[in-house]
Amino acid sequence: MEHNFIAALRALATDPAARRLLDDAAVLAFGDTRLVLTYDMIVEGVHFLPGDPPEDVAWKLVAVNLSDLAAKGAVPVGMLCGYMLSGSAEWDAAFARGLAEVGVFFAVPLLGGDTVSGPPGAARSFGLTAIGRAEGEVPSRAGARAGDTIWVTGTIGDAGAGLRAARGLLDAPALLDRYRRPQPRLAAGQALAPLVSAMMDVSDGLLIDAERVAAASGVRIYIDLERVPLSDAYRAACGGDRDDVLAAASAGDDYELLFAAPDTLAIRETAGRLGLPLTPVGRAAAGHGLALSWRGAIIDHDGPLGWEHGSR
Amino acid sequence: MEHNFIAALRALATDPAARRLLDDAAVLAFGDTRLVLTYDMIVEGVHFLPGDPPEDVAWKLVAVNLSDLAAKGAVPVGMLCGYMLSGSAEWDAAFARGLAEVGVFFAVPLLGGDTVSGPPGAARSFGLTAIGRAEGEVPSRAGARAGDTIWVTGTIGDAGAGLRAARGLLDAPALLDRYRRPQPRLAAGQALAPLVSAMMDVSDGLLIDAERVAAASGVRIYIDLERVPLSDAYRAACGGDRDDVLAAASAGDDYELLFAAPDTLAIRETAGRLGLPLTPVGRAAAGHGLALSWRGAIIDHDGPLGWEHGSR
Repeated sequence: MEHNFIAALRALATDPAARRLLDDAAVLAFGDTRLVLTYDMIVEGVHFLPGDPPEDVAWKLVAVNLSDLAAKGAVPVGMLCGYMLSGSAEWDAAFARGLAEVGVFFAVPLLGGDTVSGPPGAARSFGLTAIGRAEGEVPSRAGARAGDTIWVTGTIGDAGAGLRAARGLLDAPALLDRYRRPQPRLAAGQALAPLVSAMMDVSDGLLIDAERVAAASGVRIYIDLERVPLSDAYRAACGGDRDDVLAAASAGDDYELLFAAPDTLAIRETAGRLGLPLTPVGRAAAGHGLALSWRGAIIDHDGPLGWEHGSR
Repeated sequence: MEHNFIAALRALATDPAARRLLDDAAVLAFGDTRLVLTYDMIVEGVHFLPGDPPEDVAWKLVAVNLSDLAAKGAVPVGMLCGYMLSGSAEWDAAFARGLAEVGVFFAVPLLGGDTVSGPPGAARSFGLTAIGRAEGEVPSRAGARAGDTIWVTGTIGDAGAGLRAARGLLDAPALLDRYRRPQPRLAAGQALAPLVSAMMDVSDGLLIDAERVAAASGVRIYIDLERVPLSDAYRAACGGDRDDVLAAASAGDDYELLFAAPDTLAIRETAGRLGLPLTPVGRAAAGHGLALSWRGAIIDHDGPLGWEHGSR
């Protein structure tokens, strides 16, 4: 059902700036510079838990949108927030405090939006448009070339483990914030944009998002699972064996950057300058689809590659 | 409660582009041009009726946002749509058809957005960001000067009567479309922007919106009720006496433009060129607040001036 609806929208989105609704953001030429636009919604019970602190919900709403800007190498210039009053003045006030905090943290001004009353008992849902500016070419998901190395920033799987911790299914308090307060990789995106052939943010799971890069670029992507970077906290809570890595690489909400680029000194130096690990996890080759290996042997994997909720 | 939340947001919105959240849109200098950004939500049971055709809901979602661009004299360049799946594939498909239709009608490309699943039974709610571009000064609500004439485009009150017709409270089928398919005054806004001292769109009611212009501009606005332009269909269905005009002027959803400008030949000629009535309905003077008159006599009016749902 959702696929049909998205297909119908895609048929409308014929403007080149829409990037066929297949990218993280719309990119519009505006004079000499590029306007990068993203719009993500979060819904209680789907993207956050009913018990999550409202300050963290505000943080997440902003962060997931900024992560899309990061993937395009854009500098945020503002945001518009769509807010449905929750029925609790206390909750609303805490959300507003969270919005203030995250706006200051990432230096993104609130420019506008809309506040509406919802019907009684409605699930909380919020939308946000983030606006960014970028110079020069704006990377898409579609530019990966055979021979490129596939990289990720930071560590993978922490937010998925944090979600399990928030649900009381895992004892990993150190990872809660990775789920509730994602850190969009803005500086990394801006530094990497001129160096990459394709880039996207990892919102639905490293594997499913790598498959999307492969599909958009018309290449086959090999991921060497043993190279997927795990945090010490993840290893301590979940382990580091093949299935643990598979779980990490198919969990959502990482908001790291996944990119294809030749393995050059410039990339290596960028990691040092950013103080952020940039880890080669695989390569692009001729062909299509995704192939997974563990210590040199291709493996079969029938399980899910990540979240398929149709959001961009 | 809503006022507290909006006050909290306003305290965040210190960037000049935010116009203190008091205008119809955010206006951001972007290279040599101005980027005009608006974000409006519509909620079932609040902004549209559960029985409204989904094509019309899509039309209205787009039109209310384009109306904000019109009020700033902006040319639409694109839109991003936030859609919560309704639980009915048929409804969703009809909405997508409506979105296609309105996008073609106003030549606004769909650039992106987000589609999410809502919890079962959730009221339908949708958001939209419209992006426009404007050259030169972008009118705000705050520029009306003592001595200006106050004008409106088109006719007033038709959508309010159309809403009553949709609810079965009034026999006025000709006015249904004014409620369900508002016509943002894009061409008028673009033509008028260089000529006006203040402009906004009439979304909540002519009187309440005139009061907002008065407050933002620091002037007193006199509205001569007998000059408020009514359509023949409105007069036929509702009458044209003082109370009928008051009802028209305090009903929402007109999406006409309200502006302050000297009464010049340029304005009069613009009306002819647009083929759209531009009607002087009052004047701005020193002082503050709103004053209403009927055939030369100031009247007391204790009733509501329009909708106060806190949306922009």
